[in-house]
Amino acid sequence: MTMKLSFVISTQPTQFQAIAFDPNFEANAARIAELGYAGIELGVREPDKLDVANIKRILDKHHLVVPALGTGQAYVEEHLSFTDPDPSVRAQAIERVRSHIALSSQFDSKPIVIIGLIRGKTFANISREQAHAWMVDALQTLAREGQSRGVRFAIEPINRYETDWVNDIAGAHALIDDIGADNVGILFDTFHANIEEPNIEVSLRACGARLFHVHVADSNRWYPGAGHTDFACIVATLRAMNYAGWVSAEILPKPDVLRAAEATMRTMKPLM
Amino acid sequence: MTMKLSFVISTQPTQFQAIAFDPNFEANAARIAELGYAGIELGVREPDKLDVANIKRILDKHHLVVPALGTGQAYVEEHLSFTDPDPSVRAQAIERVRSHIALSSQFDSKPIVIIGLIRGKTFANISREQAHAWMVDALQTLAREGQSRGVRFAIEPINRYETDWVNDIAGAHALIDDIGADNVGILFDTFHANIEEPNIEVSLRACGARLFHVHVADSNRWYPGAGHTDFACIVATLRAMNYAGWVSAEILPKPDVLRAAEATMRTMKPLM
Repeated sequence: MTMKLSFVISTQPTQFQAIAFDPNFEANAARIAELGYAGIELGVREPDKLDVANIKRILDKHHLVVPALGTGQAYVEEHLSFTDPDPSVRAQAIERVRSHIALSSQFDSKPIVIIGLIRGKTFANISREQAHAWMVDALQTLAREGQSRGVRFAIEPINRYETDWVNDIAGAHALIDDIGADNVGILFDTFHANIEEPNIEVSLRACGARLFHVHVADSNRWYPGAGHTDFACIVATLRAMNYAGWVSAEILPKPDVLRAAEATMRTMKPLM
Repeated sequence: MTMKLSFVISTQPTQFQAIAFDPNFEANAARIAELGYAGIELGVREPDKLDVANIKRILDKHHLVVPALGTGQAYVEEHLSFTDPDPSVRAQAIERVRSHIALSSQFDSKPIVIIGLIRGKTFANISREQAHAWMVDALQTLAREGQSRGVRFAIEPINRYETDWVNDIAGAHALIDDIGADNVGILFDTFHANIEEPNIEVSLRACGARLFHVHVADSNRWYPGAGHTDFACIVATLRAMNYAGWVSAEILPKPDVLRAAEATMRTMKPLM
């Protein structure tokens, strides 16, 4: 039982700067495999526009697995979310994640669908109760559909500056309690945790069996090793939890994508 | 030579949630003095509207010093800044900080005027060079005027989510180099440092003699002790630097102002 390292790559141009846009997917996939990564997590705004056969061909060639699919770009670029006051936007958001489920089911690895910013936040003139009901309802519907296709979901707590809803692990647990589906778990992101969690290791342990996925980024969102987060302690905690999932680097592409991937591997490999 | 503890209180209602608004200044000043604080740092949006005589009376009664004046509310509430495309707004921003200089000169302690968000940021259609020139020019003018009245300034690096200009200590040094006035130094805020500085203690030491003021808030912006920042290490570093200035708690008023002040003292006092 061992953890596996992956690296997040966006499949189309994005304004969401935390995800490296990669216009040269094939070359970078080759290099990422060569560096020792076992997988590539895909940030996908519009699954229906993806050339899945081509991506699978490239990944297979380099023995790379897809552990998870990011959905955040649909919020950042198109403002789709489960709590939008406009019912047609809410419907579109659900439809969009449905297409992520369909995409996931095309991979043998059945990548986890990440529920980050697309879950929504507070809007003026919408009560928190109403927004919460929409969010839970959307996620129950999607969880049910994912269940029948073997697809899981991970709620990602995101820091206060990017959203006002589910900023920490306690908030993720509360939301998942309300959804009540066992194919919905938690994504623990070390960058957000550095801002929000009183104690990073205690909060990580508190995820328990709901820990489905892990993002690593250092305290300044650069590659692990560029900031002050204690990754040795984080990996030791994951090991103590018998975590057998993926550890995926979602970081700023600094100084550039490949050098960030190299530096991440340099820090993480000795710890794994 | 010893460090002194102070607590930030806003003198008028604010939307800037990191600064506790205190409608009951007198009672809280009494309690803050009783807790062992030696000073109260004042967040002041409009110095001209302040009842200075009354504030001085209250502070004197409790032997409290004013180590610094915050100016950020003039940006948050009125959008005044040195880099605004509108020349009348830039002039108002300078005029406003002039009134902070005047306020400072009314206190024996000559509180440091904090230059945070009011310094400005990038605006559409304004080149970075132009904005930088305006920022430097405004600060040179104000530094000169402060010099003649014995008033100092501290540039506060603020994390990337709140501004795009001077996020870290390196950026503060570069700005101060360009201003070229020795009454302009650095404010080190532990909350912002947790997000921006690769290594908090290394960056703190790198402030050197330019370290004029320190803000403490834990990693989650609650009182020291509520998060994972290592304040023992920070205080030890300050001591090794022979820092003899103030350590001021600028924190979220959680669970409420006075309980935050109590908890801060509980964590900081044994370290001082």
